[in-house]
Amino acid sequence: VASDVVHDKAVIISTGDELMTGQLQDSNARWLSERLVELGILTVEHIAVGDDSTDLFEAIHRAARRAPLVVMSGGLGPTDGDLTREELCRATGDTLVLDPGLRAELEARFAKRGRALTARQERQAYRPSKATALPNELGTAPGLAARLGVDSPWKWSQVFCLPGPPSELRPMFEREVVPRLSPPPGRVVLTRLLHVIGLAEADCVDRLGELTRRDRTPLVGITASGGILTIRIRYEGGGAGGDSAGEDARHKALRRVDETERTIRGILGDHVLPTDAQGRSGVECLSASILADLGERSRTLAVVESCTGGMLGEMITAIPGSSAAFRGGYITYSNDLKVNLGVDAGAIARLGAVSPEVASQMALRGLERSGAHFCLALTGIAGPDGGTAAKPVGTVHIGLASREIGAGASAAGARHFVFSGDREDVRRRACVSAMAMLHFALRGCPAGEPRLLWEAPS
Amino acid sequence: VASDVVHDKAVIISTGDELMTGQLQDSNARWLSERLVELGILTVEHIAVGDDSTDLFEAIHRAARRAPLVVMSGGLGPTDGDLTREELCRATGDTLVLDPGLRAELEARFAKRGRALTARQERQAYRPSKATALPNELGTAPGLAARLGVDSPWKWSQVFCLPGPPSELRPMFEREVVPRLSPPPGRVVLTRLLHVIGLAEADCVDRLGELTRRDRTPLVGITASGGILTIRIRYEGGGAGGDSAGEDARHKALRRVDETERTIRGILGDHVLPTDAQGRSGVECLSASILADLGERSRTLAVVESCTGGMLGEMITAIPGSSAAFRGGYITYSNDLKVNLGVDAGAIARLGAVSPEVASQMALRGLERSGAHFCLALTGIAGPDGGTAAKPVGTVHIGLASREIGAGASAAGARHFVFSGDREDVRRRACVSAMAMLHFALRGCPAGEPRLLWEAPS
Repeated sequence: VASDVVHDKAVIISTGDELMTGQLQDSNARWLSERLVELGILTVEHIAVGDDSTDLFEAIHRAARRAPLVVMSGGLGPTDGDLTREELCRATGDTLVLDPGLRAELEARFAKRGRALTARQERQAYRPSKATALPNELGTAPGLAARLGVDSPWKWSQVFCLPGPPSELRPMFEREVVPRLSPPPGRVVLTRLLHVIGLAEADCVDRLGELTRRDRTPLVGITASGGILTIRIRYEGGGAGGDSAGEDARHKALRRVDETERTIRGILGDHVLPTDAQGRSGVECLSASILADLGERSRTLAVVESCTGGMLGEMITAIPGSSAAFRGGYITYSNDLKVNLGVDAGAIARLGAVSPEVASQMALRGLERSGAHFCLALTGIAGPDGGTAAKPVGTVHIGLASREIGAGASAAGARHFVFSGDREDVRRRACVSAMAMLHFALRGCPAGEPRLLWEAPS
Repeated sequence: VASDVVHDKAVIISTGDELMTGQLQDSNARWLSERLVELGILTVEHIAVGDDSTDLFEAIHRAARRAPLVVMSGGLGPTDGDLTREELCRATGDTLVLDPGLRAELEARFAKRGRALTARQERQAYRPSKATALPNELGTAPGLAARLGVDSPWKWSQVFCLPGPPSELRPMFEREVVPRLSPPPGRVVLTRLLHVIGLAEADCVDRLGELTRRDRTPLVGITASGGILTIRIRYEGGGAGGDSAGEDARHKALRRVDETERTIRGILGDHVLPTDAQGRSGVECLSASILADLGERSRTLAVVESCTGGMLGEMITAIPGSSAAFRGGYITYSNDLKVNLGVDAGAIARLGAVSPEVASQMALRGLERSGAHFCLALTGIAGPDGGTAAKPVGTVHIGLASREIGAGASAAGARHFVFSGDREDVRRRACVSAMAMLHFALRGCPAGEPRLLWEAPS
């Protein structure tokens, strides 16, 4: 499917009743948008519709009128609710044919598992006669590529239909779609994310001031999520010149984005996390940052988790190579396991497991037991039950022990938070706050500084 | 905003450049769709557009022509990229006015934090003159409710604009939007999810056969994600009668959905997880199921995690009340901590930390140390680096120790998996497989039965 059309913008269509009933979160539209931007193609709209012939047909037509590139996901499987094949065929005025090659592949795939190809599964071997089938190495449903004539400046829109499961869609996009794309020559779209901790959104907006103006180049936007702010920098330029103009445009774009990043860092200081691999979430960026800071100082970390049950360890070990600085830890969910670790049973009985004293002891015992240089410990009430007037749901004490703080061999302190939100929110915010405490400690801030979001008045 | 229009269907619009560049995952459309279905209102389309005046204006018009109810999220904040207020105003042919009440609230909110209201922040106190402001108790941006005249059978569409952050959108929807909705009287939409473990999607589709026919009532659909299949049952009926007809319709719907669930359970047996609170994900349902099975038998669980770094503990403790059966565990990420727990250092040196022997020992030592009745242990190579020809990335050994299996006091066995996907996929699938092993063991299946997805040939 060699294309004479320039793919300067794209529309993404996701299909499935489960999206309309909210039974499934669509993650494909986000992923496809991110990849397309990296390739110089801007997405202008996401559309999601249910498994309905008319809706699907109209969505395809509307998308093709809106952009020369349309990427669809879902509706290619063997069930009666899979209608993408039929509606793409109808939209392009084509007829469905059985593709003998596809049929043979399907048959072989089922034979490998000792099973015969059923009539239901065989549907996946049909395609519109003028469409190209895109092989699926990880599932049974092949993808489709077709062209659709439209009354628009670009005359033909290129439509790609990919399977819904992300594990099949992603490799098919890379292998089959990317080589068939024609981004505008010389077009440069550069995006960069900066993650900010320990600041409320309104404070950040005010500090950045004119930087967030809509007519600024590069554009600067802010989003808040779970205690981390994300600043988005986006530069768009070029698109008319040839390859060398494109190279110049790319340098210019990079310089402009770098300048904007420096300005923001100048204003926000250590609240901005270092930029590493793009595409990481705020939490991943925070984990990677403390791992890098620990690594530079040849220091190691352990965790002791009660209310978070392993979530902090999970976040830290989500980063490849975390074993260089992360030793492991203890999930002391029950009081027995806290005592097993060496926490004083009397303190638990007297002050409760959710107390600054127990948080400090957890951190200190975890430090000693693991041999790490730093230890973070969390104990709290994640809810929805278990709250009291004195210790409401959301109360979390976070201990930080260190072999470097204090006069003696090791010392620990604890900070008191009251997080809002549901169980998941409380746990997630607690882990982010624990990492933020370590982040500022590693960067030489005095204990307790800066005051963090949700921190209770002391 | 009392409404004389019946809200039989809805369109959801999400706005933000960060959605178009893939820098943010939209979770609002899914959540809103789920809540609307529960209220008897079907969503027919999701639209997402960037912070562009024309796109936003057209999306509002198109949505209103398509459905009498439009729910929007995002674009209400103080930055120049926040255009929803202006475009709603333009679409409804209204003019923006400063709302003195909103201004006073904003001023008070800032004063509480010792700050003055800036001109930028003040924008959030403007609204279209005929629109109603919806108070925001958790953020600075109020929501908006307005009516838009359209050339359609319903003449007026009701448009609600809500802030983008889910923590602000959700309570505002419940408190301000729900009371203003008019679902069709007597309309019943019932949905139910069943989660299935240990079966490939194609096997499940074939076993269910005619149940997945598109003209069946209730409808049955299947989606696969991360090793768990989700079967969606959806019943739609009523919508014309009054309240008593509605009550009958509800009973009928419930009976039909129950019948379909029983049929599916009859076919798939223990592969189907028990249905508990709806709205839980497949993983949450699996965690809740093993916790319930343990609770019924008065048994407790511990975990020992290497490559998953705490993820299994996090998944189990995501369930409120998990402390009744979950004691805690050990994150033995480094070999030192494995040896600390009591794993034989010689075995690690001889066989490698990623081996059946080490997985079994981890499970057994975790069992003894924690005092639990069951212990799951995971050791593997999550990638992207660290793979070899003999132990490729994705290799995970999962140990299960129990005080009940075997002749002696306690015994352990390990099973060998090779998971596909990236680091996150491998870790997630490993945790799901560990819980699946325990699920079938608790239900009396012989050790090693049934063979699970991604299990290596033995």
